[in-house]
Amino acid sequence: MSFGKNINLSIFGESHGVGIGIVMSGLPSGIKIDYDQILDEMSRRMPGKDKLSTARKESDIPIIQSGIFNDYTTGAPLCAVIKNSDTHSKDYSILKTHMRPGHADYSGNIRYNGYNDYRGGGHFSGRLTAPIVFAGAVAKQILDKQGIKIGAHISQIKNVYDTMFDKVNVDINTLQSLLNKEFPVLDNSKIQPMKNEILTAKEQLDSVGGKIECAIVGIKAGVGNPFFDSLESTIAHLAFSVPAVKGIQFGTGFGFATLNASTANDEYILDNDIIKTKTNHNGGILGGITNGAPIIFEVVIKPTPSIAKEQDTINIQTNEPVKLEITGRHDPCIVHRAVVVIEAIAALSLLEIGV
Amino acid sequence: MSFGKNINLSIFGESHGVGIGIVMSGLPSGIKIDYDQILDEMSRRMPGKDKLSTARKESDIPIIQSGIFNDYTTGAPLCAVIKNSDTHSKDYSILKTHMRPGHADYSGNIRYNGYNDYRGGGHFSGRLTAPIVFAGAVAKQILDKQGIKIGAHISQIKNVYDTMFDKVNVDINTLQSLLNKEFPVLDNSKIQPMKNEILTAKEQLDSVGGKIECAIVGIKAGVGNPFFDSLESTIAHLAFSVPAVKGIQFGTGFGFATLNASTANDEYILDNDIIKTKTNHNGGILGGITNGAPIIFEVVIKPTPSIAKEQDTINIQTNEPVKLEITGRHDPCIVHRAVVVIEAIAALSLLEIGV
Amino acid sequence: MSFGKNINLSIFGESHGVGIGIVMSGLPSGIKIDYDQILDEMSRRMPGKDKLSTARKESDIPIIQSGIFNDYTTGAPLCAVIKNSDTHSKDYSILKTHMRPGHADYSGNIRYNGYNDYRGGGHFSGRLTAPIVFAGAVAKQILDKQGIKIGAHISQIKNVYDTMFDKVNVDINTLQSLLNKEFPVLDNSKIQPMKNEILTAKEQLDSVGGKIECAIVGIKAGVGNPFFDSLESTIAHLAFSVPAVKGIQFGTGFGFATLNASTANDEYILDNDIIKTKTNHNGGILGGITNGAPIIFEVVIKPTPSIAKEQDTINIQTNEPVKLEITGRHDPCIVHRAVVVIEAIAALSLLEIGV
Amino acid sequence: MSFGKNINLSIFGESHGVGIGIVMSGLPSGIKIDYDQILDEMSRRMPGKDKLSTARKESDIPIIQSGIFNDYTTGAPLCAVIKNSDTHSKDYSILKTHMRPGHADYSGNIRYNGYNDYRGGGHFSGRLTAPIVFAGAVAKQILDKQGIKIGAHISQIKNVYDTMFDKVNVDINTLQSLLNKEFPVLDNSKIQPMKNEILTAKEQLDSVGGKIECAIVGIKAGVGNPFFDSLESTIAHLAFSVPAVKGIQFGTGFGFATLNASTANDEYILDNDIIKTKTNHNGGILGGITNGAPIIFEVVIKPTPSIAKEQDTINIQTNEPVKLEITGRHDPCIVHRAVVVIEAIAALSLLEIGV
Repeated sequence: MSFGKNINLSIFGESHGVGIGIVMSGLPSGIKIDYDQILDEMSRRMPGKDKLSTARKESDIPIIQSGIFNDYTTGAPLCAVIKNSDTHSKDYSILKTHMRPGHADYSGNIRYNGYNDYRGGGHFSGRLTAPIVFAGAVAKQILDKQGIKIGAHISQIKNVYDTMFDKVNVDINTLQSLLNKEFPVLDNSKIQPMKNEILTAKEQLDSVGGKIECAIVGIKAGVGNPFFDSLESTIAHLAFSVPAVKGIQFGTGFGFATLNASTANDEYILDNDIIKTKTNHNGGILGGITNGAPIIFEVVIKPTPSIAKEQDTINIQTNEPVKLEITGRHDPCIVHRAVVVIEAIAALSLLEIGV
Repeated sequence: MSFGKNINLSIFGESHGVGIGIVMSGLPSGIKIDYDQILDEMSRRMPGKDKLSTARKESDIPIIQSGIFNDYTTGAPLCAVIKNSDTHSKDYSILKTHMRPGHADYSGNIRYNGYNDYRGGGHFSGRLTAPIVFAGAVAKQILDKQGIKIGAHISQIKNVYDTMFDKVNVDINTLQSLLNKEFPVLDNSKIQPMKNEILTAKEQLDSVGGKIECAIVGIKAGVGNPFFDSLESTIAHLAFSVPAVKGIQFGTGFGFATLNASTANDEYILDNDIIKTKTNHNGGILGGITNGAPIIFEVVIKPTPSIAKEQDTINIQTNEPVKLEITGRHDPCIVHRAVVVIEAIAALSLLEIGV
Repeated sequence: MSFGKNINLSIFGESHGVGIGIVMSGLPSGIKIDYDQILDEMSRRMPGKDKLSTARKESDIPIIQSGIFNDYTTGAPLCAVIKNSDTHSKDYSILKTHMRPGHADYSGNIRYNGYNDYRGGGHFSGRLTAPIVFAGAVAKQILDKQGIKIGAHISQIKNVYDTMFDKVNVDINTLQSLLNKEFPVLDNSKIQPMKNEILTAKEQLDSVGGKIECAIVGIKAGVGNPFFDSLESTIAHLAFSVPAVKGIQFGTGFGFATLNASTANDEYILDNDIIKTKTNHNGGILGGITNGAPIIFEVVIKPTPSIAKEQDTINIQTNEPVKLEITGRHDPCIVHRAVVVIEAIAALSLLEIGV
Repeated sequence: MSFGKNINLSIFGESHGVGIGIVMSGLPSGIKIDYDQILDEMSRRMPGKDKLSTARKESDIPIIQSGIFNDYTTGAPLCAVIKNSDTHSKDYSILKTHMRPGHADYSGNIRYNGYNDYRGGGHFSGRLTAPIVFAGAVAKQILDKQGIKIGAHISQIKNVYDTMFDKVNVDINTLQSLLNKEFPVLDNSKIQPMKNEILTAKEQLDSVGGKIECAIVGIKAGVGNPFFDSLESTIAHLAFSVPAVKGIQFGTGFGFATLNASTANDEYILDNDIIKTKTNHNGGILGGITNGAPIIFEVVIKPTPSIAKEQDTINIQTNEPVKLEITGRHDPCIVHRAVVVIEAIAALSLLEIGV
């Protein structure tokens, strides 16, 4: 289905079908869109770049069908289609019967009475995050006009932890520096240990999970709504639309459980006559509405379920237990590729909520 | 605004206004509704029952305006209104100027240009969870006809932890036993230690946070959708519509960050010819769709921001720093009162997703 | 269900239940609402005023539950409940079995498997237009701040025709004068002939239909959207939510079928350097978007289906043909009472489309 | 923006951009889709076939990107893209400044601050009805599985009137015969007179309007909802999303104004123990819900605004009056090409309402 009342997003496509893409409607007209910046964002998610990711090579060039004229948004729906090119459908024929653990094969098969496109996970494929990145890249350019910047980093891979954002003082420079990193962490000394975790998993025919922390700066107070259209509801809704996300927390998040309010409440102070908070446990959102502090949230990404290691499962045609070793090209970790996806959903949430 | 495409929820009211309530539409006709069961659910959230909660006494009797005829749902919109009775508006006049830390006073003031009803937090008040509990009570009775049961427990108060659900084997009996507990935990030996944490905070004019774990059993595989209408998106959307929720995780949640897929993937087995999972790290949801395992999720509730302890804040009329001691009747902890609210949003999510 | 993305309307209630009402959300904060003006609008629809309408007397006093504080909108959802008082449920017991021709008794019975509240038509009752008038009265006050005025008149009762609006030059004064009329027509000489048609029908135990023409003035060009969110789609959607409306046309409407474009196209001219149209065949809307000319549309209202004359129908309990004479209190015509309802849906459409 | 809660439609594209298309989501899985039938439907709307239409030739081949696998719907979103091929953008450069009367040039220019794609009307072009026809063709195949058939005919061109449907007895055979006609009317003797009206207008460098009557047969009672989600609201909403539609009426429509209820009420009778109506003034819908009679509605299509005849308008760059003669390839009438579009919106309305 589709997302949004203020903007509207319709995502489509299957991993090994003709093409994938997205329609964005409700965008403002007259926004200059830099196509190269979009390609830069696409390449941050793109597979096949190094040993940390799947060997599937997709050029991931979004062909804009509509909504942009002479480089400016027209205000009409913007559609981009990405061709599926490097598809090896033969790799996947076993998926018709052998349900991969951790994937949507079984739940999807029941949901669609077996008519879902099983090749490469079909519509459930992580490949469908490419259109989300495209949409996020457009959204970021719109937000940029208003001084709003979004950035994220890998905060954890297995037991290796990056430094966390300074929730009060995180600024545009910090976020900008992350955008330029091929493996975005705040503490560069953590790059190799994290990569080692990924390569170790790869050697073991296994995969690893991790966390991503995202910050939005430059957003003014008063954006959002209470209850059903809260900013947290909107961001969380989109975050859980990203395959592999299994948790989200805002500000201090699950850490609130061990705090007293006297610590957890973000007291107000004046800073050059402007109202600010001393701390930012609430991640910039109170009652579903921004308070002017940076928006901070963190998501967890589960380990890529496609692994070559032998697993127990069921052949749903024969209803018999079988052993499964998933061949083909897979990611030993998708956390680093997901960073730009999480930034995208943050950007899209702000367009939806109306900045 | 409102929630839902399949059902539709419109919540209304302000803490010290005439009344609060909810309109539910899109309900099936012909479902027998037991009003006493609704009252039982209302009383689980009700304030003023003991020393652990605010002294504000509200009878919280929902007056059903429509949608039920001769005890059965008519299929037309069901509206319930709850009168605000025990309102001491004088308690709250200072809130017009002194922004309470941790509350939506400031973000709401900016959002609504100062026209929001500031008395007792107005529309942002936790009191607005009463209509959510009402709606949840109706939803539970509808789900019950299909053998679906929902239950939750306090999984943590400060540093005291309850036993967690057995993610694979949690059953209706376990959930039923929780419903009958005045302070719902799985391990009764944790009741007093948790209460002590709350009472200690109260003595210190402070408050504490905690966590709630929720389980849904009896749900068949194939319920939900990929991407924007995923079951996780729907539950998370509603969870963050509950004031004080700052994080949510499904199944193993943030624990996925330290797992390999070979552990995290839930392998399939046959149990009396029925396909089941050996483990339930994914909390019963894969690709946004149920796989037949119990749905398990956990939320964190921040410490009630209203505390009598002195705090720094700003008087927005004079734009000057002030000290604030919040008087009036407040909860030193809302986690135990929020248990039924979290169950309610679980039930409403299932109606929305279409079971 | 509910209406709207920009605003949200949830209507509830059944003719002989506890109460009826509406929740409006998404309203701007800080708009001063004059309650007496609301009551004036309510009284324009109110039954029991004269021999032209049903003898059912309802005070139709909307009790505002939320969303207004110190006379200003708070920005939180605005709910109003109207009590059902003068209900004679015994009048209606036959409706459980004898399906009234022209009413929703049969279609509703099938839709809701017989669980719908049959008393007085239940949720299908024209009484449910009272909350729409309430919402329209609020909407009009919001639009008034922007210089937008809405007015309507009875354009036809049976074979008596009122003068039509001057589509180009209709102005606020004309609309204002209609608001003050007890029987709103442009040409006062048509009042008595129209009333005669109604009274004749009443004598014959029958009822009559008619048409209502509505104008919106003071609206600037550029309001609306192409395709699914066109202004015409929005107005028509709401118009057909009003019981008894069976047709709608914009501007020249069905008259376009006999015109050539050289006549039908509204040519542009300059009037004091402002772009205007010479004619207004398009009723102020082109491509779903206003062009600055007055918005003009007309709806048809079918004759009230409740008549005392004997009719053939089926007893759905016995599945046998029966004769039915509908007793009780009924309107020989509802066109004059519907004028304010049509104005209301015009006002609500503009709020939804975003003026 | 997009349409629908039960299904979701996102239309995109501009007349002279890269491509146009639609995303349909919420479709059932497992429906066999015959691509040739889709092409047949596309060709019914296709331009360039004869002297009655524009000379622009577009092959209008929809390339299905997703949602169909091995000829069956997968349940995932179905996207089709149609390439724009025969575009003569030079024809349209004057549209940047000279606002065509009767078109959305001016209202769109204001709405989008001049950033809308003005070539050939951009997103406002009637060409965007091609994706609607595609979606309708898919919808019809889904409905066909349930025995529901939709057909329409040209009921009027200028002063030439076709016979109207027998509202009670219209059947599948009648509708089927219309589908096979190149110029669909019930009374073949009206074909030449109607064509003569069109050719006369063409000679005069002018264009003509007309009406289309549509019938839906095979639909059971009980489909639809009261108020905002009424079947009439849904059909009307989509009808006014079709460029050039300026009015819609159900059943007897505007004719109700001159009827008494004793005539207008559709009395119930038993026909082989099945409840039917004697007449069908209400067009098969009561209270927004079907009563089992055929659904009958009629729309008016205004004369194509693009004409070669000289017209007065404004150059919005210089703000000066100018004369405009629209050159290029235009339709002297679009009513016959719109027949399949109106059938499409009928089919899509039924999917949305949930048959």
